[in-house]
Amino acid sequence: MFTPDRFITDRLRAMDASGIRKVFDLAAKLKDPVNLSIGQPDFDVPEPVKQAAMDAIARGFNRYTVTQGTQALRDKVAGLIRAEFTNWNKAEFSTLITSGVSGGLMLALLCCVQPGDEVLMPDPYFVMYKHLVTLAGGTAVYVDTYPDFQLTAARIAPQITARTKLLLFNSPANPTGIVATDAVCREVAQLCEERNILLLSDEIYDEFCYQKAHRRGTPAQDRCPSPAAYGTNLLLLRGYSKTYAMTGWRLGYVVGPAAIVEQMTKLQQYSFVCAPSMAQVAGVLAHDVDMSASIAAYRRKRDRVVERLSGVYDLALPGGAFYAFPGVPARLKMSATEFCARAVEQGLLIIPGHVFSARDTHFRISYACDEKMLERGLDMLVKLAQA
Amino acid sequence: MFTPDRFITDRLRAMDASGIRKVFDLAAKLKDPVNLSIGQPDFDVPEPVKQAAMDAIARGFNRYTVTQGTQALRDKVAGLIRAEFTNWNKAEFSTLITSGVSGGLMLALLCCVQPGDEVLMPDPYFVMYKHLVTLAGGTAVYVDTYPDFQLTAARIAPQITARTKLLLFNSPANPTGIVATDAVCREVAQLCEERNILLLSDEIYDEFCYQKAHRRGTPAQDRCPSPAAYGTNLLLLRGYSKTYAMTGWRLGYVVGPAAIVEQMTKLQQYSFVCAPSMAQVAGVLAHDVDMSASIAAYRRKRDRVVERLSGVYDLALPGGAFYAFPGVPARLKMSATEFCARAVEQGLLIIPGHVFSARDTHFRISYACDEKMLERGLDMLVKLAQA
Repeated sequence: MFTPDRFITDRLRAMDASGIRKVFDLAAKLKDPVNLSIGQPDFDVPEPVKQAAMDAIARGFNRYTVTQGTQALRDKVAGLIRAEFTNWNKAEFSTLITSGVSGGLMLALLCCVQPGDEVLMPDPYFVMYKHLVTLAGGTAVYVDTYPDFQLTAARIAPQITARTKLLLFNSPANPTGIVATDAVCREVAQLCEERNILLLSDEIYDEFCYQKAHRRGTPAQDRCPSPAAYGTNLLLLRGYSKTYAMTGWRLGYVVGPAAIVEQMTKLQQYSFVCAPSMAQVAGVLAHDVDMSASIAAYRRKRDRVVERLSGVYDLALPGGAFYAFPGVPARLKMSATEFCARAVEQGLLIIPGHVFSARDTHFRISYACDEKMLERGLDMLVKLAQA
Repeated sequence: MFTPDRFITDRLRAMDASGIRKVFDLAAKLKDPVNLSIGQPDFDVPEPVKQAAMDAIARGFNRYTVTQGTQALRDKVAGLIRAEFTNWNKAEFSTLITSGVSGGLMLALLCCVQPGDEVLMPDPYFVMYKHLVTLAGGTAVYVDTYPDFQLTAARIAPQITARTKLLLFNSPANPTGIVATDAVCREVAQLCEERNILLLSDEIYDEFCYQKAHRRGTPAQDRCPSPAAYGTNLLLLRGYSKTYAMTGWRLGYVVGPAAIVEQMTKLQQYSFVCAPSMAQVAGVLAHDVDMSASIAAYRRKRDRVVERLSGVYDLALPGGAFYAFPGVPARLKMSATEFCARAVEQGLLIIPGHVFSARDTHFRISYACDEKMLERGLDMLVKLAQA
């Protein structure tokens, strides 16, 4: 007798399907919703990047690459890292090309976390973090960052135990859009070094940082603050999906200590095998494409969100990514889930805070949509606050 | 103090880097080697398939697809499965598009195997199997299939315990090229059903089956025998990499019981996210491209291998894939590792059996190379046997 239930492991039972997905399922039922729930750019891949991928296919670059990624892309990445972070010039580090930052996260968690280990992460957090810790058999330990969403050393330190293995750091952050201050990056890098904790800096949104130069390879002091400026014993994960709108191409990378990146490479050999070949070719060229106009457009949208919602909602200033995380006004006396359900009734898709947090007091909006839809959404949000 | 050693989990320590990779590293040092170690086709992706991927990129199909894969590709796959296996017409099954068959294997193992579980696999086995079982925390149990390499029910049954969760079945097989007989497929499917064991049928080489119609969707009795013809409570994994030479594109699929495939989909959401977008578009079209000429060329190479090496070596007839697994002649009184080292000294790259097996008595050759190189390699092998 075949009993499918027998074949589902405890680790999979402990993982929920993403709450965001549930909103997407809802969206599929709505006619012409105002959709502020999408976590990817609304523009297309820049033409020269598309052309590079198409050329790779046309000329027959379609076979497995080496597991760690093409030498050309790894050299390009390493060069940009050294140009950005002077401290990494002296450091030995390895580079692994991954199938998106998500792919790198999975490899890192499975390589470095096992039962008995604790993994620190901010609350609110990117949904995948919690589930990857479960997958690896570790225990997630949440650091409350309300109301300003800065993951400071003072907030982290009391949560460190002898079992703490890894800290997940994410700036600019999903779901809050918060950019860590330079001081926070420094103190967190130092804390992890002192306490022998591996810091994993998820910088998928580093080029969406509106007060700073967006381009990778610019000296660190002019760019989005990063713990990598203050330590080399960390895993730095970056990607191409968001900046170049190639979320379907699955391309990212990790740089970090050789001993750890080598283990991740070994695991990649038995799982992802390699990042998509044509995407790796396009990645080399992507770094030289000027994305200023796209970034500026997102900055204008961010400004518009802040302009319309500040005062109406309790809103920590989002300095990057394409998210904002306003609080539901207390006088409405409703949870974020209730608030978002009300929004959905009116055709507005936003994500309740409990999807990312132990609290259910805030909601995520994404402004990675066109301006018209954003304005419609902001109008609706302003009205909802007055209800 | 940062001690990288602290961050490597036991599961990663228990995994070796692939022995095949070591041969590749060796290959990199040799000048113009005769390389019979490569596990991928020597032809390029067919033009219409390349064009479909390029068109997808050009028209802006570059964003995440849904986790389970595009509806078009899932419909295509499901239709072919129903056309091939009449028993699947009545069965409820789900389809998940994966990042290659390797991606599907990783998801399946992590979803279905946990500490305490035993996983049966043939010896010799595809190298990834062993490591994925380790990754999932299970125990690999090997079923010796020498000398004919048929994974029969009689060989499997004595190894089944109350802890047996999964059976890894692979036909045509890597590293032996052996095609399971129809009788073996039937008895193994029945055995798994009776003993409540999940059968995972890895059919990455199903279109390289030289006695049968290669094209998927042909009625099962005319195609490479599969356990799927005799049961629906199994995971069937197939890919595009080998047939269409798109190993770098990372595209495969799994069909099977909804309860299990849904769990794999959930895990994909937090790891691979989706298979590469342009590859999914190309996959729909790939099924309609006639690969007969390529398959026929491989069959001729297979015939040539058998013609030249039978009698010289102990060789179980390889009916599929593009591998053969001859035994090192006993009178040479050397292990396969020693034999392969001697071959490498002469510039011939082949893989010693211990990479795939507890035994070190055979060696793998791949004939997925051009005819000239294959003839040179066969000449060298004939000479080596006479040494």
